[in-house]
Amino acid sequence: MMVARKTKEILSSNVTRSEDGQLQFASYSVTELAKEYGTPLYLYDETRIREKCRSILEAVKEAFGSSSRVLYASKAASFKQIYRIMKEEGLGIDVVSRGEIFTAHMAGFPLDSAYFHSNNKTDEDISYAISCGVGHFVVDGEDELLAIDRIAKCAKIKQKVLLRLTPGIDPHTYAAVATGKVDSKFGSAIETGQAKAIVGLALSLENIELHGYHCHVGSQLFDAEVFLGTARVMLEFVAEMKKEYGYEPTELDLGGGFGVRYIEEHPVLDVKDTVNRIGRFVHGKADELNIRLPKICFEPGRYLVADAGMTVYTVGSVKRIPGYKSYVSVDGGMTDNPRFALYGSPYTIVPVGCEVPIEHETMSVVGRCCESGDILQENVPMPSDIKRGDLVACLTTGAYNYSMASNYNRIPRPPVVMLGKDTSYLAVRRETPEDIIDLDY
Amino acid sequence: MMVARKTKEILSSNVTRSEDGQLQFASYSVTELAKEYGTPLYLYDETRIREKCRSILEAVKEAFGSSSRVLYASKAASFKQIYRIMKEEGLGIDVVSRGEIFTAHMAGFPLDSAYFHSNNKTDEDISYAISCGVGHFVVDGEDELLAIDRIAKCAKIKQKVLLRLTPGIDPHTYAAVATGKVDSKFGSAIETGQAKAIVGLALSLENIELHGYHCHVGSQLFDAEVFLGTARVMLEFVAEMKKEYGYEPTELDLGGGFGVRYIEEHPVLDVKDTVNRIGRFVHGKADELNIRLPKICFEPGRYLVADAGMTVYTVGSVKRIPGYKSYVSVDGGMTDNPRFALYGSPYTIVPVGCEVPIEHETMSVVGRCCESGDILQENVPMPSDIKRGDLVACLTTGAYNYSMASNYNRIPRPPVVMLGKDTSYLAVRRETPEDIIDLDY
Repeated sequence: MMVARKTKEILSSNVTRSEDGQLQFASYSVTELAKEYGTPLYLYDETRIREKCRSILEAVKEAFGSSSRVLYASKAASFKQIYRIMKEEGLGIDVVSRGEIFTAHMAGFPLDSAYFHSNNKTDEDISYAISCGVGHFVVDGEDELLAIDRIAKCAKIKQKVLLRLTPGIDPHTYAAVATGKVDSKFGSAIETGQAKAIVGLALSLENIELHGYHCHVGSQLFDAEVFLGTARVMLEFVAEMKKEYGYEPTELDLGGGFGVRYIEEHPVLDVKDTVNRIGRFVHGKADELNIRLPKICFEPGRYLVADAGMTVYTVGSVKRIPGYKSYVSVDGGMTDNPRFALYGSPYTIVPVGCEVPIEHETMSVVGRCCESGDILQENVPMPSDIKRGDLVACLTTGAYNYSMASNYNRIPRPPVVMLGKDTSYLAVRRETPEDIIDLDY
Repeated sequence: MMVARKTKEILSSNVTRSEDGQLQFASYSVTELAKEYGTPLYLYDETRIREKCRSILEAVKEAFGSSSRVLYASKAASFKQIYRIMKEEGLGIDVVSRGEIFTAHMAGFPLDSAYFHSNNKTDEDISYAISCGVGHFVVDGEDELLAIDRIAKCAKIKQKVLLRLTPGIDPHTYAAVATGKVDSKFGSAIETGQAKAIVGLALSLENIELHGYHCHVGSQLFDAEVFLGTARVMLEFVAEMKKEYGYEPTELDLGGGFGVRYIEEHPVLDVKDTVNRIGRFVHGKADELNIRLPKICFEPGRYLVADAGMTVYTVGSVKRIPGYKSYVSVDGGMTDNPRFALYGSPYTIVPVGCEVPIEHETMSVVGRCCESGDILQENVPMPSDIKRGDLVACLTTGAYNYSMASNYNRIPRPPVVMLGKDTSYLAVRRETPEDIIDLDY
């Protein structure tokens, strides 16, 4: 793999340009990777993932002691190799379906360190997770709690659970990722008394071992105040339940939501500082409320993998409509990254073969689907001579891209290539049309 | 299969309730189908698909003569069995990718009756389609036209093409499905002179056989005036090109977009009447402009399959948040139907086991994904006693549901079950977690 000298960073320290303007990711030449693996192509900087795991784990242990945990919210990017990395880095995992549990299991991840989330676990899911020895269930509501108790009874076990609560915090982020407000499909609301009721229920059930509480207020948080506000509500609830039921939790999971930099305008979150601030606040608050500090968990997903990811595309056509706008069509799109189509999410897209010159054009980068909504990003600065066959890269695609990919238009999903310390390797192979019709009769 | 007597229709004549209130689809008991195949479950009323194929084909032949064609826009629902049905019904197909071509091919569909669309065909796609003998390419722009000419030359053939043009018609529908406006990623604009330029280019290329023009102005059209306005612009362009280049097309593809009834408030489109009106207009206009009437094609997708589809779910939890709102969580969601998440698309969702009583509640029907945006529909009337284990059905899901499905949260895609005249059968089997990890290393 050609490794050129770095000149300057684009958005993130692992995205650089060589002296001749060629894009590099994790010190690999993006052009060479595209030649070797074809496009569209998902790349993951393995070193970056590991660095982020280590830095947040260190910060959390420092702030909350050695019993605290970091769980990787694996819905952000779920495939076997990512679970192997998390195992090696000593993280737990948050899984949300039988499919994620199965993937982690097949990757050799120890499922006693898995926390099973989701707002709707079927009886089959619950039985499966119990049979695999999933450590904790994060229980969304009463229907589910009763089902777990019933199935755990048949399995002759006591299932460890956390209760997902909604602390009533509005994270001031966009609606589709705001999960901690009272009117959320997730969890039991503290404000309405439903959280208190489900604690009472959990404590009364024979095959349920209540370990504590969970909350997650939203994504893309850059403001430590949101975490502090959440921690305050949760700790006050702990104190209230101590008074109400004499019950003190052994675990408190404060969720994830650490913000990621998608565009230059986004700030860089100092996670160490944020976690430290949460730590000081939580210790002080626990003392003030006279409660025993439970084991603290965090659940970053996006934060661990987003800026470790990049998607590489080949341009198929450049279309200028005089008086209107210009389009660059690439060989991927909403099938591999539906986030602009879904939420208008911002991304940074850059040419691979050269820097964007000062004199440039502004274009819409669109996908290859027969769908007008198939847009990757609007108003992207592009060199005027961009043409069919050129490469472009979308940065920070490590979270919620491969995991949300579809086969719309029967377009196969790109491969996932890991950029290791010494060599690149396939973590997920490229899907083929043969794979897609495999389910058809 | 238990077949009960029909009482009344819900939205569409193939959705009825038996006397005891049980939901029926194409005269099949939905409860029995859910028992047999499990949930979530896509159902397709085969008879309805065939009826719609026949009625639109008859209307088109009547209005435009026996050489006219109806092409099924297969991105609406693409799997082998649907291509077999289209072949049996004498329709052509519109395909948008190598994956769709491959699926049709493996189903035995004669590819000389296929029209290859898409705004971004790679060289590999073009080579593949030529090697399979795809009848027509619908060319999106100059980059692609030159690539087809080059590859056709190597293959020593002359490739038949239509040129996709944007007539500058605003269909007054929502942006994500408006494709015929001047500022669209699709086609060459008439208004800007780019359409004229690409006609000149096509006529000059040795390995291109220009057969005519294509346009498609948008989806969910209920107003014949939009089709007439489009036809007018296209025929005037035909006349202009006759004058400019002495060229008269042999085919004119007027696209699709025939509206479908998703909710009671939507009108019912009289396709026979609409096609007749377009026919009278087109004949008159061609005479007026003194041009030879080309072979007319239409490309319905959604219209042929949408109301032949239904998705059946099992309720996992019912959550009432006093003072806020109520949620019914089902065992599917944006993974099998992302259209509310993407576009806020309206759907009718009903309980399977009983009618909605006059005294009912209004609930959000949400999916099982760990994503706040995973909503199937808001403000759905539901019986107050709805509970875990009950079935609900989302109507009119035959288009852009299975085809847009994803494995987000590693959730397997539901099976596609066809309801034939005499028996139900699997067209696509249920995906498994094993299938999902098949690409992982």
